[in-house]
Amino acid sequence: MLKRQVFNEIDDDMKKVEEYLFNMLHNSYEGFESSYRYLLKSGGKRIRPAFTLLAARYGKEDIDRIVPLAAALELVHMASLIHDDVVDASDMRRGRPTIRKLCGNDFSLHLGAYLFARALSVIAEYQDEQLNTILSLAGIKMCSGEIGQLSEAYSFKTGLHQYFYNIKRKTASLVTGSCQAGAVVSGAKPQIIQALIKYGHNIGMAYQITDDVLDFSKDEKIIGKPVGNDLQQGITTLPVIYVLKYGSEAAQKEILEILEKKTFETHEVKRISEIVADTGAIAFSMSIVNKYVERAIKAAENLPDIRTTQILKEIARSINGREY
Amino acid sequence: MLKRQVFNEIDDDMKKVEEYLFNMLHNSYEGFESSYRYLLKSGGKRIRPAFTLLAARYGKEDIDRIVPLAAALELVHMASLIHDDVVDASDMRRGRPTIRKLCGNDFSLHLGAYLFARALSVIAEYQDEQLNTILSLAGIKMCSGEIGQLSEAYSFKTGLHQYFYNIKRKTASLVTGSCQAGAVVSGAKPQIIQALIKYGHNIGMAYQITDDVLDFSKDEKIIGKPVGNDLQQGITTLPVIYVLKYGSEAAQKEILEILEKKTFETHEVKRISEIVADTGAIAFSMSIVNKYVERAIKAAENLPDIRTTQILKEIARSINGREY
Repeated sequence: MLKRQVFNEIDDDMKKVEEYLFNMLHNSYEGFESSYRYLLKSGGKRIRPAFTLLAARYGKEDIDRIVPLAAALELVHMASLIHDDVVDASDMRRGRPTIRKLCGNDFSLHLGAYLFARALSVIAEYQDEQLNTILSLAGIKMCSGEIGQLSEAYSFKTGLHQYFYNIKRKTASLVTGSCQAGAVVSGAKPQIIQALIKYGHNIGMAYQITDDVLDFSKDEKIIGKPVGNDLQQGITTLPVIYVLKYGSEAAQKEILEILEKKTFETHEVKRISEIVADTGAIAFSMSIVNKYVERAIKAAENLPDIRTTQILKEIARSINGREY
Repeated sequence: MLKRQVFNEIDDDMKKVEEYLFNMLHNSYEGFESSYRYLLKSGGKRIRPAFTLLAARYGKEDIDRIVPLAAALELVHMASLIHDDVVDASDMRRGRPTIRKLCGNDFSLHLGAYLFARALSVIAEYQDEQLNTILSLAGIKMCSGEIGQLSEAYSFKTGLHQYFYNIKRKTASLVTGSCQAGAVVSGAKPQIIQALIKYGHNIGMAYQITDDVLDFSKDEKIIGKPVGNDLQQGITTLPVIYVLKYGSEAAQKEILEILEKKTFETHEVKRISEIVADTGAIAFSMSIVNKYVERAIKAAENLPDIRTTQILKEIARSINGREY
């Protein structure tokens, strides 16, 4: 999680986003409302709306105009999480039962599609063509990234290149879109938009790799979902991909033997975590995170020297210090 | 199915839509391509793109400009069918195995979301704000209609009002949107757009009720999916709702006894079909279809007296003559 204090300076604006999110289904069909509110109350880092708000500060900022857009970015993210939980058959997220656990897969499938359509309808109201393109392309990339990942599941053959390609689409595309959308709608200059796109891409990559590392290195109670969650879905992420490529023959053999069972006991997941740690895969992965963080900071250096740019750099730096 | 000959006059344009649909995933991620092509080859009535093409004839028609829009409407429809098959756990559609049967629920969930996002990205290119609103609102309504239906499943308490409300959202909204989008993008006059919206709504309603009637009255081989498919999902449609409201006490009792089992044998589905026929529920439902067909024709009477208007009326009239 990005450290809360980084966001102190946009807290007031973020409260408006939260308020917008809570009020937006007020008059709609009540079959959705309770589960939607449950989702909102389950928390989340809201990093996408935060980036939209921050990016908007590089143009003619009108906070009341930006809030719905920022909220829409969060809706797209929520939609993707709901669908992910269905695909992963996840029962827990953020330490609470998932919507699919509470309301079923069928309901979740419609709720996810509904929230995505709602986001697009919010965005359509801006009458800004670029926004529609940014969001629909992000949606396309997210789905194709998920499919890319899914189609390799249980093959345990995902290479480094494919891994980076998948996470670029499934995660970085929406973070990039969040930065881009905020800048575009506020009328920021083209070179600023380009710098923010670069920043968003690198932040998104760093963020996803950190998440993948935490999947092995942290306690279930802290991350709010089971350790080795991806592996349980047959998905190998950077730490395991590293071991399978650069680990000792013994380490590779042991990991593959466990993976090929396709379902693992707790002690086996723990063993994989140990191998991952012993091989230096965590350190390697974090060095890649650092590389993306540095690139994000470098991109921010092409932005005007205003306080917002400092905040963006602080956010970047905080990623490798993420505790959960 | 709308009779093919009605479409003769737009066959050349429809071929362009088909070509566009087949070519659009040409350079994209191949994980989607084969299943997408399979879906296209499985056929379908393509009534939504047909309405978009026809509606565009009331404005400044530029066929090459309309084709992608018409295709996008079909993509939204395809996306909804893929998701419906997941929710209904359907193995067959149009006489062929469904994507969810062939590629799994997880893949289907992403493919549906992907196609919806692709449709929106095609539409975003028109740089016409109204189009984005039309399509995102149709998406919202379709999802909420599906949820409305789902939340009542197995309650067998859906009333007439709720049934009409559900099908308005889940089916009529996209047919309406198809007519509206074609008219809007071609710059048709406001009163023409209004008449086409009215026409589309009534056609969509008539079309869905006919579909629901066919679910009881036709052979599996003809409709390409199991008879009583909705009932198997715990969903009551107009014919059964009619029996439960207006049928004899004995008929109501017998139907409810079967429904409350929640899963039925073939002979029980057959028995429900018999009761539905004996109670006059099919005749009643078709009288409602006729009412919507008449309203659609009346709406078309507010359109300029050109050949296209005649075609729209013929399509309306062909609905109650649908054979499959």
